Amino acid sequence: MPKSSLQTIILQLQEFWAAHGCLIGQPYYTQVGAGTMNPATFLRVLGPEPWNVGYVEPSIRPDDGRYGENPNRFQQHTQFQVILKPDPGNPVELYLQSLEAVGINPRQHDIRLVEDNWEQPAISAWGLGWEIWLDGQEITQFTYFQQVGGQSLDPVAVEITYGLERILIALNNAASIWDEPWGADVTYGEVRRHDEFEQSKYYFETANVTRLRQMYDLYKAEAEACLAQGLVVPAHDYVLKCSHTFNVLDTRGAIGVTERQAFFGQMRDLARRVAETWLEQRKEQEYPLLKESQTSKVKGQAVAANRPSTFDFQPADFVLELGVEELPAKDIDTAIEQLKLFFEQNILKVYHLKYKDVKVFGTPRRLVVYVNDLDPIGETTFVEKKGPPESAAFKDGKPTQALFGWIKSQGLVIPDKFLTPEDLVQERDGGRYVVRQKEVPGSSVFELFPKILPFLIRDIKFDKSMRWLPSSRLAGNANGVTFSRPLRWLVTLLGASVIPFEYAGLTAGRTTRGLRPYNSPEIEIPAADKYFEIIKKNGIVLDVEERKALIEVGVRELAAAVNGEAILPPELLAEVANLVEKPMPLLGGFEKEFLALPEDVLISVMMKHQRYFPIERQTLKVTDSTLDVQRSTLLPYFVVVRNGDSEGLDLVRQGNEHVVRARFADANFFVREDLKYKLEDFRPRLGTLMFQKKLGSMLDKNERIEKLTEALVPMLGLEADEAVFARRAAHLLKADLVSKMVVEMTSLQGVMGREYARRDGEAPAVAEAIGEQYQPVPQTRPGLAVALADRLDSLAGLFAAGLAPSGTKDPFGLRRAAIGVVQPLIEHGINSDLRRALKSAAALEPVPVTDQVQAQVLEFITGRLRVVLMDMGFKHDVVDAILAVQSDNPAGAARAVRQLTVWVARPDWNTLLPGYARCVRITRDQKEKFAVKSEAFIEAAEKRLFAAVEKAKKRERVPGSVDDFLNAFVPMLPAVNEFFDKVLVMAEARSVQENRLGLLQRIASLADGIADLSKLEGF
Amino acid sequence: MPKSSLQTIILQLQEFWAAHGCLIGQPYYTQVGAGTMNPATFLRVLGPEPWNVGYVEPSIRPDDGRYGENPNRFQQHTQFQVILKPDPGNPVELYLQSLEAVGINPRQHDIRLVEDNWEQPAISAWGLGWEIWLDGQEITQFTYFQQVGGQSLDPVAVEITYGLERILIALNNAASIWDEPWGADVTYGEVRRHDEFEQSKYYFETANVTRLRQMYDLYKAEAEACLAQGLVVPAHDYVLKCSHTFNVLDTRGAIGVTERQAFFGQMRDLARRVAETWLEQRKEQEYPLLKESQTSKVKGQAVAANRPSTFDFQPADFVLELGVEELPAKDIDTAIEQLKLFFEQNILKVYHLKYKDVKVFGTPRRLVVYVNDLDPIGETTFVEKKGPPESAAFKDGKPTQALFGWIKSQGLVIPDKFLTPEDLVQERDGGRYVVRQKEVPGSSVFELFPKILPFLIRDIKFDKSMRWLPSSRLAGNANGVTFSRPLRWLVTLLGASVIPFEYAGLTAGRTTRGLRPYNSPEIEIPAADKYFEIIKKNGIVLDVEERKALIEVGVRELAAAVNGEAILPPELLAEVANLVEKPMPLLGGFEKEFLALPEDVLISVMMKHQRYFPIERQTLKVTDSTLDVQRSTLLPYFVVVRNGDSEGLDLVRQGNEHVVRARFADANFFVREDLKYKLEDFRPRLGTLMFQKKLGSMLDKNERIEKLTEALVPMLGLEADEAVFARRAAHLLKADLVSKMVVEMTSLQGVMGREYARRDGEAPAVAEAIGEQYQPVPQTRPGLAVALADRLDSLAGLFAAGLAPSGTKDPFGLRRAAIGVVQPLIEHGINSDLRRALKSAAALEPVPVTDQVQAQVLEFITGRLRVVLMDMGFKHDVVDAILAVQSDNPAGAARAVRQLTVWVARPDWNTLLPGYARCVRITRDQKEKFAVKSEAFIEAAEKRLFAAVEKAKKRERVPGSVDDFLNAFVPMLPAVNEFFDKVLVMAEARSVQENRLGLLQRIASLADGIADLSKLEGF
Repeated sequence: MPKSSLQTIILQLQEFWAAHGCLIGQPYYTQVGAGTMNPATFLRVLGPEPWNVGYVEPSIRPDDGRYGENPNRFQQHTQFQVILKPDPGNPVELYLQSLEAVGINPRQHDIRLVEDNWEQPAISAWGLGWEIWLDGQEITQFTYFQQVGGQSLDPVAVEITYGLERILIALNNAASIWDEPWGADVTYGEVRRHDEFEQSKYYFETANVTRLRQMYDLYKAEAEACLAQGLVVPAHDYVLKCSHTFNVLDTRGAIGVTERQAFFGQMRDLARRVAETWLEQRKEQEYPLLKESQTSKVKGQAVAANRPSTFDFQPADFVLELGVEELPAKDIDTAIEQLKLFFEQNILKVYHLKYKDVKVFGTPRRLVVYVNDLDPIGETTFVEKKGPPESAAFKDGKPTQALFGWIKSQGLVIPDKFLTPEDLVQERDGGRYVVRQKEVPGSSVFELFPKILPFLIRDIKFDKSMRWLPSSRLAGNANGVTFSRPLRWLVTLLGASVIPFEYAGLTAGRTTRGLRPYNSPEIEIPAADKYFEIIKKNGIVLDVEERKALIEVGVRELAAAVNGEAILPPELLAEVANLVEKPMPLLGGFEKEFLALPEDVLISVMMKHQRYFPIERQTLKVTDSTLDVQRSTLLPYFVVVRNGDSEGLDLVRQGNEHVVRARFADANFFVREDLKYKLEDFRPRLGTLMFQKKLGSMLDKNERIEKLTEALVPMLGLEADEAVFARRAAHLLKADLVSKMVVEMTSLQGVMGREYARRDGEAPAVAEAIGEQYQPVPQTRPGLAVALADRLDSLAGLFAAGLAPSGTKDPFGLRRAAIGVVQPLIEHGINSDLRRALKSAAALEPVPVTDQVQAQVLEFITGRLRVVLMDMGFKHDVVDAILAVQSDNPAGAARAVRQLTVWVARPDWNTLLPGYARCVRITRDQKEKFAVKSEAFIEAAEKRLFAAVEKAKKRERVPGSVDDFLNAFVPMLPAVNEFFDKVLVMAEARSVQENRLGLLQRIASLADGIADLSKLEGF
Repeated sequence: MPKSSLQTIILQLQEFWAAHGCLIGQPYYTQVGAGTMNPATFLRVLGPEPWNVGYVEPSIRPDDGRYGENPNRFQQHTQFQVILKPDPGNPVELYLQSLEAVGINPRQHDIRLVEDNWEQPAISAWGLGWEIWLDGQEITQFTYFQQVGGQSLDPVAVEITYGLERILIALNNAASIWDEPWGADVTYGEVRRHDEFEQSKYYFETANVTRLRQMYDLYKAEAEACLAQGLVVPAHDYVLKCSHTFNVLDTRGAIGVTERQAFFGQMRDLARRVAETWLEQRKEQEYPLLKESQTSKVKGQAVAANRPSTFDFQPADFVLELGVEELPAKDIDTAIEQLKLFFEQNILKVYHLKYKDVKVFGTPRRLVVYVNDLDPIGETTFVEKKGPPESAAFKDGKPTQALFGWIKSQGLVIPDKFLTPEDLVQERDGGRYVVRQKEVPGSSVFELFPKILPFLIRDIKFDKSMRWLPSSRLAGNANGVTFSRPLRWLVTLLGASVIPFEYAGLTAGRTTRGLRPYNSPEIEIPAADKYFEIIKKNGIVLDVEERKALIEVGVRELAAAVNGEAILPPELLAEVANLVEKPMPLLGGFEKEFLALPEDVLISVMMKHQRYFPIERQTLKVTDSTLDVQRSTLLPYFVVVRNGDSEGLDLVRQGNEHVVRARFADANFFVREDLKYKLEDFRPRLGTLMFQKKLGSMLDKNERIEKLTEALVPMLGLEADEAVFARRAAHLLKADLVSKMVVEMTSLQGVMGREYARRDGEAPAVAEAIGEQYQPVPQTRPGLAVALADRLDSLAGLFAAGLAPSGTKDPFGLRRAAIGVVQPLIEHGINSDLRRALKSAAALEPVPVTDQVQAQVLEFITGRLRVVLMDMGFKHDVVDAILAVQSDNPAGAARAVRQLTVWVARPDWNTLLPGYARCVRITRDQKEKFAVKSEAFIEAAEKRLFAAVEKAKKRERVPGSVDDFLNAFVPMLPAVNEFFDKVLVMAEARSVQENRLGLLQRIASLADGIADLSKLEGF
């Protein structure tokens, strides 16, 4: 077979989509990160007009630049972009046909639709869909746009974005793009490789940050000026220029974490206004492309008569199959759960349908409810009807007109001989009434299901649901049909009979579809009881547990074949099992030298990105650090699970190996680049990374963290060696943020810092502390110290900068930061004084952090602490009682809550609490603190109480301990009770009164620093 | 036939060029004015590597924006760009095939290659080629690139740039682009029209000049930074951004005339450095695309044996045909001239070839030398050989060994009896030598022509010649083959025999080619004497006079058919006759309402742009102004001359009508826009138009002109009413520069000013003066005054700003300005004092114009004046004699030169001049001016001379008059001669000597203020 070339693929795709009714457009004339930004997508998907277009878009993503060294990653790649609006009903099938048109035979490859919830915050856009994988390589992004420019789309547009380089690599089974033909005997590398080198160098090293910032500002100002004139396309051009310039700045590492939010906010705002203006204009122009033919509502087919004349109404098996485009793995599980619950509870039970058993199954393409022996007619039931009261129904034991009237109105037939109070009257609601059971015959499923099944489907909820049908097709029920992914067919069979119903523009029948790799052939189901057999015959494994088992066995066998063991975490197994209908595990490998990469990187790439099962070998390697608990080593293999059979398996393997090799090469590139420097060397470059405008660079932040760590060392009671480690860790804390590997995979922040610190020969505890900084609860105390310093700095600074979270908005993750302050302190059980710690943090900020702001931060932290404690299962009143007093010390507060919870559960608590409460309540409103003079006590009871208090005061108590407080109080309870029984506190003599109040105040104050028991229930 | 759509044309062109070995590329990702700027052209045409590419390029030209109102002019149009490097040998034929591939049948249309010397100064690029016209519409630019980025191209690249919108309009025979299909049932207008409106509004009204200037500066700085790092592609990207930003600024009217030069200079410099850097890089990379197959030299075919065995060597007709791609009209004439001269003088005469007659013909496709009855063998001739002197050749009358040696060395055969001094010795060069006539037999043209004809072709020179062959094919003779356009075939026949020779990679034969519209079929010529017959049979009119006659008759007939007369200037007729091989005039028309446009605009569009013959009707319209000499009115018709026959004539007519309609609509748009304002209203906007950085805006210049005009009014002796007109004209002088019509067609500057002034109701003399300002010689005196003011201001200011012309560089046209100062003064015969005028101009400039600079300007003007006078036919010595004295007054100088010329031609001049000269020479070196005392004269002769001088001094003389001076001198000539015969001037007595010198000084000084006669020949 001759090699494919980039240009033949382009020409073929243009022909294909032109033949399928698409307008063929051109790339845009300003740098865009994706074809989505081209107005042929961004603007045209808005509003009601139809739009079908296909075009090439060379897409520029500066931070993907690899100097031409990576086999399939570059700052410029070639997209082919297709927009289908409205959804033609079979866009996935059309797409797969287009792949065949360029020469990709689905039987020879593994084509997978992998959930991908596309989001582009810079243009306020999102959609649901998939990455489409060819042998593990993402070759296309397929999305049902839900919103663009902040505007909900109606109709929804289908976006298909092909990555042409990757398709070319796959078609030619190549190792790298560079030697593949572009066309006319010229290779891709000859056209583009040197450009890649130069542009990478420009974006990473040369681009002048000051000038680019100025450009950004100028573009923004021009965009504003255009919008002010209602010039939407010129405005959009400048938004695109803003976006590209931002990307370059970002690649230069010039954009700080929080500054990024500001940029996005600006761009999002502009994009939204562009979209709004465009929509207004199109409306004014009366939607020129909205031609009659395209707006006419597609009428649902007439649904066949409900009740088949041939059906014998004997119990039979029932099957309901919902055919869908590939569901996300977790949505399969949640859909199964809901379907089972709803079908049993809301249908079978409510309508009294008898059946033997209900099973629900799910694969990416279908959700199935199977009922054994469903009786098609519901059971007869009785409904109680309450009539007139006896007094009205019977007069002297004879039925009245009122009774006859009621009987008639209810359509009841009651023989005369039963018209007696004995037969009809029963006690109800504390009176005597006429009561009669009314017989209700059961419904036929042929009548019931067409009405009820649409609601069954409608009521299934997902984390994210999508629309795909134009509201015009839903007869006023806009946004009424949503699902995880589009529904494409429905099957409902009772025995051999179809129970037709309509939903989402579909009519249920007996036709299901086969496996994707076999081109989803249509398959007729003659009768429900043949369903499993037919599905199995067509290669589909319906039961997820069966799929899991098949995968697990296959993966273990393949791992054993290379003398290894698969890493098989249950979540990954569950996910993979829900990515395929017919699992076929196969072994792939990669070059050993990649094993030199940090394991975190390797595993993260294989498991997280590729859903592969890595393979390791158990070893007894003894390491010199107790912190290093590594006891196994990775092998250069992995298992991937294909959807389909064994045909073309070698091609699939090679494809997957190519992908993983490219990904590792990429990581290798970064790590190798990074290792040219020590971690310490990166630190100064933090100065180029903005944390937040008012709060300075990440270097400024790192320096504040160092100082704050110093202040926290004594507060947290660190040992001398721990303090040394904490200081060093704090010094290097953020350095990895400017390493290339972290810039590339932000999720590795901390991880790479730890790795690089280790390789630099830093103390293991230092490396570990750096690694732990982003973990919710650092396990080491140096790690705890630096993490707290980091989080307190963010809280103090960002609140002072006016960036406190509001409503549901928390762009800087300050809720997480606050939880990250309290949770570790609780888990480590370290007492702390957050008020003081915050004061130290505040003093270091470059902006004033007023007392008021500090109080606000503390209140915010207390709020999180309350949530944490309640999440631990403690009652809100107990938590509140403690937090009212001990919120500055989360560890102490947690201990106190735990203790108080035990006390509250004690059987004698209902005597204990009131006793203490009486002391508090009577003194609560006294402004003055009265002195207690022993000589002023008159009554014996008060003298005894005074003695008890004196005794309690002598007990040693741990600060904040609820136990110590209540253990001190318990012995004085009898005296308290006697006191209140026998002594009048509010005596006429002022001095007597004050002395008694003083005594009770002493008792009440036993809880000082412990709790405010008045917050407790029953106080 | 189904309508064509934009996308089918694109797909067809992509397919066509891919099938012909082109790589298919993509539009560039930053706004470009043309596909040439895409690095796939700009960079790839540089250096020796082959490169064949085709791609779409949506091209952005802000100032072409028409708010979507013009049927085929827009700020964005779609190019399809093809680069063929090296020249494949038949690029025009390939191009014409590609037109057929998109559905353009050459028999149904008029496809013409119209000379266009492409130049892009912003990227220091130029090339020769054509606009290709389809029915009068330019649809393609076809260029042989000679230089790009300041680099000479080798091999030369062929650039073909299709204008797809225009092709679509032509294919669908549409009136406008907007309703034509783009694809998928969507029209072009639906995709682009609203964009056009918005972008036009942005470019003309909204774009912020300050911000755009900042962007330009930032881009430039980034380009520099990239170049400093050797990053050529990123640098080029920023050059492109500079260029687009400049275009937007220009469209906003923010770029002044001279400021433009600065911008261009910067961009040119950057482009050149980009090109240089790219070339260096490719060289370092060892030209990766330079594959062996493509570098192998194409060997010339073996040339057949020179002398045909069958030829009988009797005189026969000879024909030489040079087949070329379409020659520019004027190049045909110059080639004919040279061919005739060279063939007769350098070949026929030099080689003594007998013939009856030589005729030379030319059409755009062929140059033909036809010789009747050429004798194939040259005449025998004799060459004189000079041998030893007689003394050496003969000893005592006997021949010496020296003589025998010489005879032998010369290969002479001399019978013994002639070996005598009488027979052999003759006088030569003042001595006596052996002399012998040597017989030289004539050469055969079969041997001679193959050697000499290449030189014949090589020696033809054109204003602009081009290279098209790679130097690698010229065996070390790089740049050796140039011509006006590529040579594509050669025919040389003597009788029925080919005289094969090689030139420019071609071998001459007997195959010529037919007409372009018939696809240039190959045609065999059996013998020279059949040539004319065959050419005629194939429809080609070889003789330009015949073509002219056919056109003239046809044009007049068509004009008469609409009761009009054609405007048929001989230059246009000559040009049109050289644009076709088979002229076919046809009548077209346009809407009457366009006649409301200024006639200058209409005629300029029809004649200059379209080479149409306009049609007018003689009227006796009497206008109210004596200046308005309009005596005819245009009719809404024109005649266009097609190349070809009458097939498809209607389509051709419609096409041409569409073009002219679009052009008029365009002009109409501008004029209508302009007429919303008065001319006076434009004036303030001159402030936004930079004249030159140091010299301020055009408004500043206009104000200086007003003041200077005021100063010139008395100097030029204007009447009171003329002064009023001049002042008003000066006030409005430059206002039309910011009118839309002039911004669009700069050639209409002044013309539109006159038109708008008239329509505003200004005095006719004011309008006329404005209109005359750019004419070399304004006819009215107010026009003269403002033109002088304008030109003197430019000269004073620009010299002071350091921008005097240097070498061949004169970017501001100061030579023209200086000529424009002297020529009108001469023609009007108005005396002036340029020194004083310049001083007034100098005083108004915002920069200091030192005395030294003023002297420099005067010298510069004098230089031009000298050229003007010499161009009038005066002898240089006469001119110099006058200019040495009278250069500040060109009119006076001209008069003086005219008079002196007459004197110099007098028979007695050779006595007159020496007489006067003696007086001058003897006194010339005297520093002192001696007093003359009549009493000190001694000799009678000196007394008589003194008396003659006294008498002459009494004559009345007009200042500067040569006649008056010489008429005064003539009578004293006898006395002068006698004086010098009889009197010793340098007498011993000092006082006598000084008195005599004083007398002669008086005579010499008669020429003061008239001339310096010492500059004359014979002085």
